[in-house]
Amino acid sequence: MKIPSAQSLLPILDWGRHYDRQTLGSDLVAAAIVTLMLIPQSLAYATLAGLPPEVGLYASIAPLLLYAILGTSRVLAVGPVAVVSLMTATAIGEHAVAGSPQYWAVAITLAFLSGALLLIMGLLRLGFLANFLSHPVISGFITASALLIAAGQLKVILGVKVEGQHFTALIAGLIGQLGQVHLPTAAIGLAMLGFLFWARRWLKPLLLSWGVRPRAADVATKAAPVMGIAWTAALTGLFDWQQDGVKIVGVLPQGLPPLTWPVWDLGLWQDLAIPALLISVVGFVESVSVGQTLAAKRRQRIEPDRELVALGASNVGAAFTGGFPVTGGFSRSVVNFDAGAQTPAAGVFTAVGILLAALLLTPALYFVPQATLAATIVVAVLSLVDLSILRRTWSYSKADFAAVMTTLLVTLGAGVESGLVAGVLVSLLLFLFRTSRPHIAEVGLVRGTEHFRNVLRHPVAVDPHLLSLRVDESLYFANARALEDRINEEVAQRPHLQHVVLQCSAINDIDASALESLEAVDLRLREAGIVFHLSEVKGPVMDRLKATELLAQMRGQVFLTHYQAVAQLAPQLLGPGGHERPSSLGC
Amino acid sequence: MKIPSAQSLLPILDWGRHYDRQTLGSDLVAAAIVTLMLIPQSLAYATLAGLPPEVGLYASIAPLLLYAILGTSRVLAVGPVAVVSLMTATAIGEHAVAGSPQYWAVAITLAFLSGALLLIMGLLRLGFLANFLSHPVISGFITASALLIAAGQLKVILGVKVEGQHFTALIAGLIGQLGQVHLPTAAIGLAMLGFLFWARRWLKPLLLSWGVRPRAADVATKAAPVMGIAWTAALTGLFDWQQDGVKIVGVLPQGLPPLTWPVWDLGLWQDLAIPALLISVVGFVESVSVGQTLAAKRRQRIEPDRELVALGASNVGAAFTGGFPVTGGFSRSVVNFDAGAQTPAAGVFTAVGILLAALLLTPALYFVPQATLAATIVVAVLSLVDLSILRRTWSYSKADFAAVMTTLLVTLGAGVESGLVAGVLVSLLLFLFRTSRPHIAEVGLVRGTEHFRNVLRHPVAVDPHLLSLRVDESLYFANARALEDRINEEVAQRPHLQHVVLQCSAINDIDASALESLEAVDLRLREAGIVFHLSEVKGPVMDRLKATELLAQMRGQVFLTHYQAVAQLAPQLLGPGGHERPSSLGC
Repeated sequence: MKIPSAQSLLPILDWGRHYDRQTLGSDLVAAAIVTLMLIPQSLAYATLAGLPPEVGLYASIAPLLLYAILGTSRVLAVGPVAVVSLMTATAIGEHAVAGSPQYWAVAITLAFLSGALLLIMGLLRLGFLANFLSHPVISGFITASALLIAAGQLKVILGVKVEGQHFTALIAGLIGQLGQVHLPTAAIGLAMLGFLFWARRWLKPLLLSWGVRPRAADVATKAAPVMGIAWTAALTGLFDWQQDGVKIVGVLPQGLPPLTWPVWDLGLWQDLAIPALLISVVGFVESVSVGQTLAAKRRQRIEPDRELVALGASNVGAAFTGGFPVTGGFSRSVVNFDAGAQTPAAGVFTAVGILLAALLLTPALYFVPQATLAATIVVAVLSLVDLSILRRTWSYSKADFAAVMTTLLVTLGAGVESGLVAGVLVSLLLFLFRTSRPHIAEVGLVRGTEHFRNVLRHPVAVDPHLLSLRVDESLYFANARALEDRINEEVAQRPHLQHVVLQCSAINDIDASALESLEAVDLRLREAGIVFHLSEVKGPVMDRLKATELLAQMRGQVFLTHYQAVAQLAPQLLGPGGHERPSSLGC
Repeated sequence: MKIPSAQSLLPILDWGRHYDRQTLGSDLVAAAIVTLMLIPQSLAYATLAGLPPEVGLYASIAPLLLYAILGTSRVLAVGPVAVVSLMTATAIGEHAVAGSPQYWAVAITLAFLSGALLLIMGLLRLGFLANFLSHPVISGFITASALLIAAGQLKVILGVKVEGQHFTALIAGLIGQLGQVHLPTAAIGLAMLGFLFWARRWLKPLLLSWGVRPRAADVATKAAPVMGIAWTAALTGLFDWQQDGVKIVGVLPQGLPPLTWPVWDLGLWQDLAIPALLISVVGFVESVSVGQTLAAKRRQRIEPDRELVALGASNVGAAFTGGFPVTGGFSRSVVNFDAGAQTPAAGVFTAVGILLAALLLTPALYFVPQATLAATIVVAVLSLVDLSILRRTWSYSKADFAAVMTTLLVTLGAGVESGLVAGVLVSLLLFLFRTSRPHIAEVGLVRGTEHFRNVLRHPVAVDPHLLSLRVDESLYFANARALEDRINEEVAQRPHLQHVVLQCSAINDIDASALESLEAVDLRLREAGIVFHLSEVKGPVMDRLKATELLAQMRGQVFLTHYQAVAQLAPQLLGPGGHERPSSLGC
C-alpha cells in the first residue's frame, strides 16, 4: 500500500510553501468580492432553510476555514447553497417548527450527521457511489428544486401566506391569495427582483459605456445584490415601512458564532439518517462537479475521495459553530474563480470577512426587508433551471428522458427526497432493463479487411456453413437466456450449419448463470452436430473461463481473432484477396 | 403485427391432429406411472402447505387439464410442488390458522392471485422478468427451501411438536425435543425414510438381478413410495397403531373436487400481492427450466410467454376447484418424460387417474400414517439440495458466490420471501457495482495481424504519439467518470501524445451522462492539443451519436476499424510487414 505524503493529505502544505505577495493580492481581491456576494446569500439561504438569518453567516465561517485546509480544489467556496437549504428545510420540517430553538438544534444535528457520513464515505473511499446519480437525474433534480424554491420565495416577495410544500400546492395557493397581496411588500420585492434581473443583464454594459474600467464594472455587477439590499434597507429605515407591515430582518445577534453541539438522540439520528445521506450525496455531487469544472480550466485536478473528507469536516465544523448543512456552491465558486482567487487562502480571507460582518455589520441589517432577500434567492435559483435537458435527452435517449421526467415530476409533486430516490431507482431499473435485452448481430467479413460487421448494416461476406454472432453486452443472468434463444432460432433456420462462432469482443464479463447458458448452448449444438467456438475473448474473461469445465467440454476452439476463426473454418470466405493467417496465437 | 394462428395459440390443435393409437399407448402408460407417483406426493405437499390432504388431489386435476390445452411443453406435469407449497404455507400463515376453513379459503385466493399475475405477465409478454432471478439465486433458494422443508418434516416423522419456522429454530427445537420423540411414529417414519432411500438406490439393481425386465423394474422403483405407503397403512390398520398415538390421515372426503371461489377482499389481496408475485415468479422459473431441459432433449421448444398464460390458467383453475398454487414440477415431469409421454394427452389421462383416486381411493388412505407422507417429502426434497453451487461459484465468481450465500442464509434464517428478495437485490447490486468499475485496457497491435490487444497481456506494438484505449463496458452514468479519470491520468503521463483513439468495440450503449463525459474528454484533450478519435463504434451506438453534437465538435474522426485508425495516425507502427489500408469505409 502506498503511504500518502503529508502534502497529499494536507494540500495546504503544498500551496502554502509557494505563497507570495502577488498571490496574496489576488486572493484578497477575490475574497472581498466573494464576501460582498456571500453576506446577503448566506442570510437568504438560512431563511430558506427555515433558520434565523445569522445562522447563514455562522455556516460561512468555520466550513470555509476547514475546507481551505483539507480541500483539493483551489477555488471552491463552501457554505449554504440553495438546493441543500431546501433539503434541510424539508428534513427538519417534520421534527420541529421553523424558527423554534428545537428547529435550529435539529439543523445542527443534521449538519453533524451529514458531515459524519461524508467523512465515513471519504475514509472508505466510497466516492464512486455518487456516480449512481446520473447527469439527467441531477439536472432534473436541480431544476425541480430551483422551481420549488422560487415558488416558495414568491410568497415572501408578495407578502402572502401560503401553506403547502409541493409545487402545485404553492402555485395554487399563490393564485388563490393574489387578492391578499401586501402591496408595500410586493412593491419592494418586485422592484428588487426587477433590479436584479436588470443588473445581471445590463449593468455591466451600462457602466462600460460610462467609461468604467471592465474590472470595476465586473465587481459592481457582482455587488448589485448588496447595493439593492442597502438601498431597500435605507429606504425602509427612512420611511418606517415596517410600520406598514413590511417584514424586516430585525435584530440579529452581534458576535462570534456560538459553540454548539448536535443533539445526542439516537431516535432523532435514525429519523435524520436518510435525509442526511441524501443531503451528503447531493452536496457532494454538486460540489465535485463545480470543483472539477473549475480545476480543468487551470489544468488542476481534484480528488473526489479527499473532497468527501473536506466536505465532511466542513459540515462537522458547521455543526459545532451554530451552522447548518453546507457544500461547495456553484455561483460563489465561479465568482471566486473569475475574481482571480489563486489558492484556498482566498477562502480563509472570505471567512474572515464574514466573521467581521457577524461581529460588526448585523445592526446595519436591521431594516433589510425579507422580500429583498427572497428576491436575491429567486434570481440566484432561476439560473439553475435548465429545461433544455428535456429536449436533449428526448432526442438522444428515451431512457434518460424518462429518468429526467421522473425526477422532475416527483420532486415537484412529492418533494426533494422522494424525487431524488425515484430518479435514481428509475435510472438504475432502465439500465438493467436495457442490458437484459442485448443487441445480438450476425456479422460478416468486410472485404479487403480482417474486420467483421453486422450483416444488416454493411456489405459483408458470409458462409452458409458458418454462423458468426456478436452479442453486444456482457453476459449475465438477466440476458443469458436471450442469447440461448437467439442461437436456437438461428440454428433452426440453417440446415447446412456446421460451425457457430461467438465473437466475444463486446463481452466484458460472463457470470455463473451465463456460463451455464454457454454450456447448455454448446451441449445443444453438439447434439445437433454443430461445433461451437469462441473468438476474441478478453483477457479477464478468459482467465475466469480457464478455471471452468466449459473450455474442456467444448469441441470447438477459442480463437484470438475472429478473422483467424474464419480463416480456419471457412477459408473460401476470404476470397481472392484473402489469405490465411497463422492461428498459432489462438489460445 | 403478426397475427398468431389458432394452432400456435392452442397447441392442442397441433398435436391433436396427428394423434394415433401408438401415441395413445405411450401416453396411457406414462399417465399410469405418473398417477401412481402423484397420489402420495399430492397428499404430502398439501399437508406441507398446511392444507387437508385431499386438497392436493384437487390441485392435480383441473390444472393438469388446463395445462394440457394451453401449455407449450409436451411433457410438463403440473401440480403441487415442494417449494411452492412451502411458500404457500409461509404466505397464508400470517392470515389464518393451519387446518381452518379460512386457511383453505386464503390458499384458494392465493392460487387465484398468483394465476392472475401469471396471466397478466403472459399477456403483456413480461416473461423476461423471470430472467432477473439468476441461476445462483435460484439454486441457493431451492436448496435452502429444501432444507427448510426437510427440517419441518422431521418433526412429523419423529412425532414431536416444534414451534418456529426458521431453520435454526427448527433444528434447535428438534434437538430440544429429542426426549419427547413418539417412538411408534418415529419407528414408522424412519423405517419409511430408510426404505425410500434404499429403494431409490438399490431396488432397481435388485429387481434386475432377479430377472425382472428393465422397464418393469423402473416402474416398480417409481412406485416405491406407493408401496411403502400401502404397507405402512396396512400395518397401521392391522395393529391399530393409531390407538398408540400414531397420527393417520383419517377420513378424506370422497368425491369430485368442489367448486370454490376466491375471497373477494381487497385488503387481503393487497396483503397477498407480494407473496403471490413471488410464488408466480418462482413457479414460472422452475416450470420453464424443467420444460426447456426436457424440450431440448427432443429438439422441441417451449415459449416462455405462452407458458405464463398456461400456468396462469392452471392456477386460476386450481382456485375454482378447491386447489392451491401449482406449477410444473421437476420430478413428476422427468418421470412423465422417461415413461414415454408423447403429448399433453398424458397429462389429461393423469388428471383422470387422480380424479378416480379422489372419487374411489380416499377411504383406502384412511390408515396412512402422516409420518409416512412426511418421509416421502423428505426424500423428494433432499434431491433438490445442491451445495456444490457454493463451491462452483466460489471458484468462478465471488459475486455469484455472494448472491448464493445471501439467498441461502437469508432464506434459512428469515424465510422464503425475504431470502428470494435479498438474493435478487444482492445480485442486481453486485452487477451494478461491477459495471460501475469498468475494465479499461491500453491496446497495441498484434504484429502480423490487424488485431489489437491489451499491452499488459500480449506482446504488441505501440507508439508514443498515439494512445489506444479500449473500455470494456457500455458507458453509462455509473462508469462515465471512471473513463474520464483514466484518460486524464494517461494524458498527464505522456508528454508526446498527439492522438487518443477510443476503441468502442465493447461499448454497447452510451447514455446521456456518458455522452457529456465524452464531450468533456474531447474538450479537455483539444485544449491540451491532443486529437480525440473513436473507432469500431457499433451501428446502434453510431446511430444515436449521429443525432448529437459530439461528432460535429470533435476534431478527430470515427474509424470503421481500429487498424484503419492506426494506419492513418501512426503508419510507422505497422512495421515492415504492415501496410496501409484504404480508410474509405470509415464513417
